[in-house]
Order: sequence, then C-alpha cells, then structure tokens
Amino acid sequence: MLVDQLKPLAFLLGTWRGSGSGVYPTVDDFTYEEEAVFTHTGRPFLAYLQKTWDPDSGRPMHSETGIFRALEGGRIELVMSHAFGIAEVAEGAVSGSTLETSSTALVSTGTAKTVEAVARRMELVDGELRYTIQMAFGGHPLQGHLEATLLKV
Amino acid sequence: MLVDQLKPLAFLLGTWRGSGSGVYPTVDDFTYEEEAVFTHTGRPFLAYLQKTWDPDSGRPMHSETGIFRALEGGRIELVMSHAFGIAEVAEGAVSGSTLETSSTALVSTGTAKTVEAVARRMELVDGELRYTIQMAFGGHPLQGHLEATLLKV
Repeated sequence: MLVDQLKPLAFLLGTWRGSGSGVYPTVDDFTYEEEAVFTHTGRPFLAYLQKTWDPDSGRPMHSETGIFRALEGGRIELVMSHAFGIAEVAEGAVSGSTLETSSTALVSTGTAKTVEAVARRMELVDGELRYTIQMAFGGHPLQGHLEATLLKV
Repeated sequence: MLVDQLKPLAFLLGTWRGSGSGVYPTVDDFTYEEEAVFTHTGRPFLAYLQKTWDPDSGRPMHSETGIFRALEGGRIELVMSHAFGIAEVAEGAVSGSTLETSSTALVSTGTAKTVEAVARRMELVDGELRYTIQMAFGGHPLQGHLEATLLKV
C-alpha cells in the first residue's frame, strides 16, 4: 500500500524502457537503450534499478541504483549509486508530474573520476517518462549530458 | 556472460532470503527478515537491491541498493544507497568466498543522520550467505550492528 507521503512519486512506479542520447565535451555523442525499474516496500521511498545498453551491439553500458526519499510537501531526497563509482546525494522536489533534483554531494571510489555536479529532471508527459541529466565534469560547467524517453512496459 | 573480473563475486549472484538481528547502543535489539538480489549486466559490477521487514508484523524496515565493482586482483569498490538517506562508498577485497569492505566516505541527505563508518563482511559457508555489518554512529566506535544468514531461493 502506498503511504500518502509517497503518492507524489507514484507516477514513477513500474518498469520503463526506452532510448536516450548523450553528449558532453569530453566524449563522442552516443545513444543508448534503457530499462528503469521503480519499486516500493510500503515506506516513503522508491528503490530504483536502472541499466543501459548499446542500441546496435547490445553491449551493456551504464547502470545505477538508488533511493528516492519522499518528504513532506513534495520535497525529495535522492541517494544514487553509479556503476562507474560515484555516489550522488541530491535534493529537490516533485510538483505534478515533474521531479527535479540537484546534487548536494558527490563522492567517488578510489579508481573513479570525480563529477562536480548532477542535476536531474524527470517528467511524465502523455504517458512518456522523459528525463534529462545535466552534469558538471572535468572543469566543464553544468550542462546537458543525457536525455531519454521511456514507456511503461 | 560473466566477465573474468567479476568471477570472484559470482557466488553472490541470485536472490537470497533469510533473517537477521541488530544491536546497537542507541536502539533496542531487533530482528528482521531480508531479501537481497544481486544481478549483473555483463560488465564487471553487481547491482544489488535489498529490503528487510519485521518478522512478526511484516512491516517494511530498511532498504538499500548499490553497486559492487570488481577490480583486478579481487579488489572491490562499493557504492551503496541507504533508504535512510546515506550514501556509502567503500573499498575492500574478495578472497575465496569472503568479501570485506570498509567505508571510505559516508555522505548524508539533509534530513538524515550521519554515520561515521561502516564495515561489511559477507561469506558463503555451506550454501549460506552470512554477513555482518559493523557501524560507528553517534560517537560510538565501530562495533557490531547487524548479522544475518540468507539462503538462495
């Protein structure tokens, strides 16, 4: 059963698949396929498990897992584990079908690169889950990095 | 297909269920039921999704999600997202069927408490996955907090 505090995030629940694209000054443009799964246990948070793969070869690419914590008044806290060795802590809010967060801390494992900032925006539009991720990395200011459109399966 | 680098962690793959118990100077002793799922995508990391619940009432308790990164020579990096608002970055090693990690950084969301250190030990013994988690919290030194025994389902 969904607790009241989690209801603003209920639109994310389920399994989503779709495709996205990435750009950044430090890499060649790329595209990807994605699956993202949001589940809940009855407490006011979502557990999130995501993976991406190359559209042509099927080669696995990124993965991330995390927790979306729903606070009072639509405030959100995010704790995200990136497969490339970054932990992201972020805060933001959900309003209607739009969720936005900005990182408050990013910590790396010993062998991982350092990311300076991450900003996420997720929006449900006509049954499509669209997201954008901005990133500040390698001295480059916060700017568009990923965008994708997913459909519930 | 499992890449060579991930093979030392292969014993974790699958879905595990079992029960555990917790102690700490700041809380009453407690017990819990647990499900933990380890998956891989073909790259040298495991994705991990875990939840616990009260044995009597079924009330959901903790949840955590994370990434276990397999490096050369059995070295491990861990990035963990705790539902109570903590990101844990840890390093360690796997040797035989024993995995040990110690936190190198712990970061909290704005509303979460601060944890000072976490040490994890997981071991496969006669088909049972046994783990212990030590924690330093609230000024208390690193000490036993959780222990559980899980079976593959």
